[in-house]
Amino acid sequence: MNFEINEQYIKDLKLALEEESALKVNELIEDIHPADIAEITKRLNLDEIKMFFDVVPGDLISETIAELEEDEREGLLHSLTPEQIAKKAIDYMESDDAADLIMELPLEKRAQVVKLIDDVKKASNIVDLLNYPEDSAGGLMAKELFKVDINWDVLDCVKELRKQAEHIETIHTVYVVDENNKLIGTVSLKSLILTSSSTKIEDVVNRDIISVKAYTESSEVAQIMEKYDLVVLPVVDDLGRLKGRITIDDVVDVIKEEAEKDYQLASGLSDTVESHDSMWQVTKARLPWLLVGMMGGMGSAKVLGVFDITKHPEMAVFIPLIAAMGGNVGVQSSAIVVQGIANNSLRGTIADRLLKETGVALVNGLACAAILLGLNLFLDYNPMVSITVSIALLSVIIFAAIFGTYFPLLLYRFKINPALATGPFITTTNDIFGLFLYFYIGKIIMG
Amino acid sequence: MNFEINEQYIKDLKLALEEESALKVNELIEDIHPADIAEITKRLNLDEIKMFFDVVPGDLISETIAELEEDEREGLLHSLTPEQIAKKAIDYMESDDAADLIMELPLEKRAQVVKLIDDVKKASNIVDLLNYPEDSAGGLMAKELFKVDINWDVLDCVKELRKQAEHIETIHTVYVVDENNKLIGTVSLKSLILTSSSTKIEDVVNRDIISVKAYTESSEVAQIMEKYDLVVLPVVDDLGRLKGRITIDDVVDVIKEEAEKDYQLASGLSDTVESHDSMWQVTKARLPWLLVGMMGGMGSAKVLGVFDITKHPEMAVFIPLIAAMGGNVGVQSSAIVVQGIANNSLRGTIADRLLKETGVALVNGLACAAILLGLNLFLDYNPMVSITVSIALLSVIIFAAIFGTYFPLLLYRFKINPALATGPFITTTNDIFGLFLYFYIGKIIMG
Repeated sequence: MNFEINEQYIKDLKLALEEESALKVNELIEDIHPADIAEITKRLNLDEIKMFFDVVPGDLISETIAELEEDEREGLLHSLTPEQIAKKAIDYMESDDAADLIMELPLEKRAQVVKLIDDVKKASNIVDLLNYPEDSAGGLMAKELFKVDINWDVLDCVKELRKQAEHIETIHTVYVVDENNKLIGTVSLKSLILTSSSTKIEDVVNRDIISVKAYTESSEVAQIMEKYDLVVLPVVDDLGRLKGRITIDDVVDVIKEEAEKDYQLASGLSDTVESHDSMWQVTKARLPWLLVGMMGGMGSAKVLGVFDITKHPEMAVFIPLIAAMGGNVGVQSSAIVVQGIANNSLRGTIADRLLKETGVALVNGLACAAILLGLNLFLDYNPMVSITVSIALLSVIIFAAIFGTYFPLLLYRFKINPALATGPFITTTNDIFGLFLYFYIGKIIMG
Repeated sequence: MNFEINEQYIKDLKLALEEESALKVNELIEDIHPADIAEITKRLNLDEIKMFFDVVPGDLISETIAELEEDEREGLLHSLTPEQIAKKAIDYMESDDAADLIMELPLEKRAQVVKLIDDVKKASNIVDLLNYPEDSAGGLMAKELFKVDINWDVLDCVKELRKQAEHIETIHTVYVVDENNKLIGTVSLKSLILTSSSTKIEDVVNRDIISVKAYTESSEVAQIMEKYDLVVLPVVDDLGRLKGRITIDDVVDVIKEEAEKDYQLASGLSDTVESHDSMWQVTKARLPWLLVGMMGGMGSAKVLGVFDITKHPEMAVFIPLIAAMGGNVGVQSSAIVVQGIANNSLRGTIADRLLKETGVALVNGLACAAILLGLNLFLDYNPMVSITVSIALLSVIIFAAIFGTYFPLLLYRFKINPALATGPFITTTNDIFGLFLYFYIGKIIMG
């Protein structure tokens, strides 16, 4: 049931695959959930996976393929023939998973696979879905759903469900449509079970129903499903005609991806990159931000060049402290704003936010500056330098907090992902400005 | 249906509340979803909210309260009497939401509210739930569920469902238990509708069912539901007896919280803090990491103090560049590992990872070092200093990449959240070590 992969199991499986023993392999994977089988296949090499897919039944293959990560599928799909993909994988998949899979194939292979799908209805559903952008409601939805006519009674419904049930695995919701396929509402399985068979659907239909248009962005779909605690959400066209439905498990992936994207932007990775991606992909995702950081460093060098460091060389040892603190405060401030934007929980005006942030910065800044001054005097640093460092620290913390709060709001206004602001960009800016402040204050105090 | 809050609407509502007109208020909120009403209440002040809750019907109040954020509820609950909470809120809530709400009350108020719940079964369910830790399967589950006996037939089942349906809003899944309430499996509503009423439940029960123990951590619950694409998950005790069920919407919150926690740790926020928290809470979450960063800065100062900056004052202007690049590379490297750990997608041994990371660092480092050298010579910096900076940059990038990869893995081994590694800690360490390398290389090259 709740299966844990252990090393002995993987060894046994690899051995069975090496022996090309279909019997042993199928014995080993009996009763194991496709999601676990997908886990297991991650431990196999490509030859072993091919052998594996040769010997296990089709329904298992399709579910396993659906559970694999996009890049893991790529290698596998590449080595399968269009026949194998159509007959072994697509045949057992729901339309949304099938469409996703076909989208990952090279263009000419797509057409070949679609032609080989026996079920005409399914093929047409899949072709329909291929038209929607991947990150839209249409791209997330599946075409399989139960629908009944508003003019029927409960008995008609149950009969229709029996008929439709042959093609559809699970009933999420029963949708009620009119004669033009316009979505009217839903009828619960509960009421189908609990009311008499002559009851009119019209009398049990729930008309309070939330739906989305097919071109709604997937991030908005996720927000809606999360906000209204929905498990399944119908998708309609501009005329309100029922086109498909989105289930929460597909949206959980969207939610996770959004969170990951923010985290990556904040970490200075410009592209969705995973640990097992190729060295080249990883480099491509990282180098741009490093170059931005380097240009920032050149800027800092220019700023420092303006001042004569030899005049107060003791000041130089605190350059890293000032730079680091500006960066830290900036990242903290912007992270709070970025999260507030993502959760839609920001309140009050920009002025309110800046005022509060300045207050927090003042408290933190005074605490840090006082502690630092005490430490520096105790450690016998030059008193004038120590005072300069503490004043500069306080100023930098306040500046970084204000900039860190305002900048993501500005990005958001210009429809740029505000998580960008918590990345190397903000630390770089704070470095340059913070160091300028530091040496400027030093010049005022010590001449 | 899909409701958008606009300013005029808020104005009208505030006016109606000021006039204490129950009629107008109820007219305004007619047909609006409780999740939207929760949104709207965020725009009201406490007096207005109190008035609002006085005039709208009970079922709406309970749903609205369930949709509010924890800290928003706090103020509201504080101002309601135990009677109001028990009769207006709890009465219409499912047991899990009710238990969550009661947990937020001060201790003495909890007992008062529980005593005032009329429905004895519900009160006992809630008291049961209060025993489970908040972040466990028991803390997430609700007690409301449909269950039937394995020895019944379909007709018995439908009769029982009719009986249970009075108390339960939606049917997620019908669970099948034996005479000791031990979970055997599930029976789909589809088969209840589609098979004859004399069919034995034993013949249609699906025994392949995934369940969790009540003390399973909520993050593990989230992983299981995500992995197996579950919408609802049964919770059992050590003897396998059915205790409750968890629905995906509660788990979506867990998934989001986990992602947020990582993001916050990486941004140097030591506590879950939101933009509308009090200044004191925000300060408390931020100051600890700032102090860590400051100690790091003091460490850098000590390291720099070892070298005689006056000997090569031109070197000082590149201190921010070296420090920033070490931090950037370290954060990038650790972010990739942290995400790999979170997604369970890390493969290969630690040595493999370090080797690959070193490769990426070598490519990035050589590119950056070469560009920097060109720039510095073009900008007429001292050639020996320029060479020193480029060699130091390459070394720092390689060191930061290796450290950034290894450190989160180390934290993870000691069961510490690896996201901590992408925070100020790693930038600070890289600052100190990077600057040491820089000046050490400078000393070797220029004496």
